Amino acid sequence: MIGVGVIGYGYWGPNIARCFSETPDCRLVAISDLSPAAQARAGRRHPGARIFSDWRELISDPEVDAVAIATPVRSHHELGIAALRAGKHVLIEKPITETAAQAATLVEEASARNLVLLVDHTFCFTPAIRKLRELIESGKLGDIYYYISNRMNLGIFQSDVDVIWDLAVHDIAILHHCLGSRPVAVSASGASHVQGRPANMAHVTLFYEGGLIADLNVNWLSPVKIRQTILGGSERMVVYDDLEQSEKLKIYDSGVRVSNDPKEIHRLMVAYRIGDMVAPRLDTGEALLTETAHFADCIQAGRTPITDGEMGLNVVQILEAASQSMRQRGQPIEFRQLRMAS
Amino acid sequence: MIGVGVIGYGYWGPNIARCFSETPDCRLVAISDLSPAAQARAGRRHPGARIFSDWRELISDPEVDAVAIATPVRSHHELGIAALRAGKHVLIEKPITETAAQAATLVEEASARNLVLLVDHTFCFTPAIRKLRELIESGKLGDIYYYISNRMNLGIFQSDVDVIWDLAVHDIAILHHCLGSRPVAVSASGASHVQGRPANMAHVTLFYEGGLIADLNVNWLSPVKIRQTILGGSERMVVYDDLEQSEKLKIYDSGVRVSNDPKEIHRLMVAYRIGDMVAPRLDTGEALLTETAHFADCIQAGRTPITDGEMGLNVVQILEAASQSMRQRGQPIEFRQLRMAS
Amino acid sequence: MIGVGVIGYGYWGPNIARCFSETPDCRLVAISDLSPAAQARAGRRHPGARIFSDWRELISDPEVDAVAIATPVRSHHELGIAALRAGKHVLIEKPITETAAQAATLVEEASARNLVLLVDHTFCFTPAIRKLRELIESGKLGDIYYYISNRMNLGIFQSDVDVIWDLAVHDIAILHHCLGSRPVAVSASGASHVQGRPANMAHVTLFYEGGLIADLNVNWLSPVKIRQTILGGSERMVVYDDLEQSEKLKIYDSGVRVSNDPKEIHRLMVAYRIGDMVAPRLDTGEALLTETAHFADCIQAGRTPITDGEMGLNVVQILEAASQSMRQRGQPIEFRQLRMAS
Amino acid sequence: MIGVGVIGYGYWGPNIARCFSETPDCRLVAISDLSPAAQARAGRRHPGARIFSDWRELISDPEVDAVAIATPVRSHHELGIAALRAGKHVLIEKPITETAAQAATLVEEASARNLVLLVDHTFCFTPAIRKLRELIESGKLGDIYYYISNRMNLGIFQSDVDVIWDLAVHDIAILHHCLGSRPVAVSASGASHVQGRPANMAHVTLFYEGGLIADLNVNWLSPVKIRQTILGGSERMVVYDDLEQSEKLKIYDSGVRVSNDPKEIHRLMVAYRIGDMVAPRLDTGEALLTETAHFADCIQAGRTPITDGEMGLNVVQILEAASQSMRQRGQPIEFRQLRMAS
Repeated sequence: MIGVGVIGYGYWGPNIARCFSETPDCRLVAISDLSPAAQARAGRRHPGARIFSDWRELISDPEVDAVAIATPVRSHHELGIAALRAGKHVLIEKPITETAAQAATLVEEASARNLVLLVDHTFCFTPAIRKLRELIESGKLGDIYYYISNRMNLGIFQSDVDVIWDLAVHDIAILHHCLGSRPVAVSASGASHVQGRPANMAHVTLFYEGGLIADLNVNWLSPVKIRQTILGGSERMVVYDDLEQSEKLKIYDSGVRVSNDPKEIHRLMVAYRIGDMVAPRLDTGEALLTETAHFADCIQAGRTPITDGEMGLNVVQILEAASQSMRQRGQPIEFRQLRMAS
Repeated sequence: MIGVGVIGYGYWGPNIARCFSETPDCRLVAISDLSPAAQARAGRRHPGARIFSDWRELISDPEVDAVAIATPVRSHHELGIAALRAGKHVLIEKPITETAAQAATLVEEASARNLVLLVDHTFCFTPAIRKLRELIESGKLGDIYYYISNRMNLGIFQSDVDVIWDLAVHDIAILHHCLGSRPVAVSASGASHVQGRPANMAHVTLFYEGGLIADLNVNWLSPVKIRQTILGGSERMVVYDDLEQSEKLKIYDSGVRVSNDPKEIHRLMVAYRIGDMVAPRLDTGEALLTETAHFADCIQAGRTPITDGEMGLNVVQILEAASQSMRQRGQPIEFRQLRMAS
Repeated sequence: MIGVGVIGYGYWGPNIARCFSETPDCRLVAISDLSPAAQARAGRRHPGARIFSDWRELISDPEVDAVAIATPVRSHHELGIAALRAGKHVLIEKPITETAAQAATLVEEASARNLVLLVDHTFCFTPAIRKLRELIESGKLGDIYYYISNRMNLGIFQSDVDVIWDLAVHDIAILHHCLGSRPVAVSASGASHVQGRPANMAHVTLFYEGGLIADLNVNWLSPVKIRQTILGGSERMVVYDDLEQSEKLKIYDSGVRVSNDPKEIHRLMVAYRIGDMVAPRLDTGEALLTETAHFADCIQAGRTPITDGEMGLNVVQILEAASQSMRQRGQPIEFRQLRMAS
Repeated sequence: MIGVGVIGYGYWGPNIARCFSETPDCRLVAISDLSPAAQARAGRRHPGARIFSDWRELISDPEVDAVAIATPVRSHHELGIAALRAGKHVLIEKPITETAAQAATLVEEASARNLVLLVDHTFCFTPAIRKLRELIESGKLGDIYYYISNRMNLGIFQSDVDVIWDLAVHDIAILHHCLGSRPVAVSASGASHVQGRPANMAHVTLFYEGGLIADLNVNWLSPVKIRQTILGGSERMVVYDDLEQSEKLKIYDSGVRVSNDPKEIHRLMVAYRIGDMVAPRLDTGEALLTETAHFADCIQAGRTPITDGEMGLNVVQILEAASQSMRQRGQPIEFRQLRMAS
């Protein structure tokens, strides 16, 4: 039985707590939050768990074997280091830290102590992304040419991070997870429409070896949530709409053809599709529950999480490079530089 | 009665011919095409029209008052100048010419002879774009912040133009028509996945005064046609899907709000929309027929077309700048340079 | 070369005329309509065709080998008989006639004179219905259990026919064409919401041998057009939305399963789908053009049309039975009676 | 503080338990279920609650003020009567009982003891249905003409109830709640495709005073979940798709018009819509949580639930009539008879 403590019971923490309370081999033993209101909610929701206001008490609780950190990113490094030094396995919300340098120290601390460090890039555990990765690995899509993502949140501004760190982080993690490779260069431009606030709208372009280009449009300016991604390859294309319930993934058959035959061209000008479309049935499992179970399994079997600290570090390196490019009005940042950065 | 002659009876020419045959005050008197097969089709379809193989005969036909040019772009300049010099009004397929310099001579020739020169940017005559322009001018959308367009054609390659000149041209014309302003800078990157072919996939970014950024994703690599545009303002957002039949335009109420209240943020994290959505009823008129009628009206009333040569020239200037930027790996091109170009 | 004359140039006639003008081996030689305005439109559109006000002149025109009848249904019988007696092949708009008795005389006249009689049930020539029929015949859907159709037209009333004869006629023809069998009983109920008008809203149920039940909801009371059909079998289900452009047909894999296992039941309670969904690519050909070409082929090769007079008669028999059932407040009408009716 | 006990921890029970654990002024004090596995799940999920195998212990628990019954319908009457006689308020899953006679005794028992009896017709608490009711009451839809519902569940069979009692019950409750009136007659037909099983596919028609006709298509034979309802009035129409996330309700403006003008008719033949469509923003609250809070409020304020026993009884009366009609092959059952039934 793994005793789990959750630090932070604001927006995401309650979901993490609930999932651990439903995860086999795990027991939710403690929750900490600074806010008395949050403590009260936690207490009513989880009468079996000890409720702390100070995360230090939670970390020093002997029944706590693993700590889940669901606090604002600026506190991740301090809490993560403290938890690891107390010998606890750590599940940490994305992004892992505010800087690649901080992330590197967490990665080193975890590996030095042989503890599990999982970064909560939840999307990587969704049935849709698991299927997408499977499609790419199977070669069914052929060579991957482009990834276009429109990811827009209801018009609200946050002050601690900008829209790239809040939304583009998802696509960067998805790409890293599905492709298993990192971009060679990053370019980003953005704007803020409220004095003194971080960028609320941005466009990020990731350049990969082999010619894949990923264009990410992210913003907080939309009155409707949008989560649309198009991934195109030489053999097939996938349209992924995360807000669709029964057709999240649409796989379009048949790829690129070369032709100058006017008849052929005219035929295609009036057509809507070349081949069949398949919307595969996806599992119905909850992503976060899959993730907490994976975390428990990694702890018990000594495995490395699919979203480990290394990946979290890599994502932050790309985010840092995007921020740098945005400050330089879209100047592309070669990824070689990043390596040095960390 | 305006006598109309159509040069080029390939893919688009037959539509232009049909529309003129249905336009009040117009009479389709002649059609020319090099291909005997096309001539036969034209003859069967329009028994009342004279059929020529040589466009010179059509232009010199005294019954022809206006000429519609539906040939490959490389021939636009020669045919356009010849028609104007023969004193004919001209409707010319988009893009107006291969270069801004060529376009400028057409514009000058037409104005010197006081002839109507209309560029066939058909989208500007669709009910959806007319509505979109009306929404922007009414101020209902507030300040325009972003324009994101995914425009993908069935996987087929052309050899005479690249994907920017083939597809991005539509968004550039729509933006020019709806905003009535030109970008201050243009940046573009693209790739070709077939040896020696022009770019079949590209991303174009247009920067406008006031902070509007337009991101255009265009490619020929898709097995399904995609025509999705998102236009966001401070007050409302519009999602325009040209392949939708009864909900082409969706207008989402309520704009940007600033808040750090966690409750508010959490409420929005789980919501899908802030305000109501309205899909206005659109007229059902055929865009090309609206355009040919507008052309006839401009000739008879001596009006300037909404898509006149000046606009066509401006679109080509932007296309040239995009091509230049693409050759320079995305280097932004300031629009000031363009002006000198023409 | 088949000389074709079109009687009636109102709403549908122009489409028929256009298609014949584009059909190989056919020549549009004459058009007749009582309205001078319609005659003018026809003349401008088809300068090569003779324009008559009196259909008798068209029928007696020696260059006319085949007649297309696109007039109100009440005139179908008189025009059809006259054309057949003049030795002309006949294409006639749906429904073939106002009564089964009238239809029977047309069928007899045509077969006695060995002339082609094609009823314009256009849906049977659409790529979607041709695909649907193919799916049923292939057995891929298994045993067909239900057919549910919601077919609603924009809120407008007609006075000559009721909504069953105007809209349900399409589903009845589609079922006849796809199943190749006729219902054993028909039941219908409906209502009119305007004094002295025919029913503008109705529900028709067709009972087939083998247990298939078809429920047709038709009305003229909708502010939006709806064309949704669900066809369910023991192996697969098809959802057909005729207003969808790129996904008209959706084929859902996996059929009925029997289970009392609570786990299985709970799993399905939260799922959206059991199997994959495939939206097959459909041809892009225009249905009416396919139909006119089929008509020409039947004339030249002496074939029987897939929508021949027999089928048209059968459809009218079912419509008569539905009307009878509606007058008797939903009393089911056994199909045996119908046969006697004709 | 209201102490709540939940009987039955199978599929729906856990949701009820969770909601009560999150409902202000309520405390989840006990859960009972026959299955040891269910008891274990309940214990892990709700460490603060007493877990019983025998519901009698739960009902006799002095800390239990209210009982939620989430067991198979055949046990509802016995458990409901026992709970009421023990002086507990009762929330009971739909349908309230197996027969109207049983329901009547529960209603009488509750009113005699002045206890709250709420039937869990959850749909009546969804934001979509609350909005729909509001629209009808406001008169914005005009006179209601038709209600068409396609409600299909993934292909699985249950053995205790038929598809009408399992699925049509939702539409019957929604209609009762939104219209506040009961049908004057009911007709139903159905079929079972597995030997000795209850009907797995059925069509129910409800006839209301004023001419409203409700057509309900329900079945368990679909590989994809379908939840589509169309409600049409003289002024507006509503399309309700419960599986849509951001556009559950679509309200189409403009109602019925009478016209014989061919121009007008042709214009509409090619149009898709008459007026605008509005998809109102809906609240995001969870329906069941709204319901448990309403239950608590009724207990504390002595109010009558919007889904009280009377309504539950009425729904069962209609279900019984539908079953009777189905046995008589669609014979309409006048609702006057039902009254006598109870």
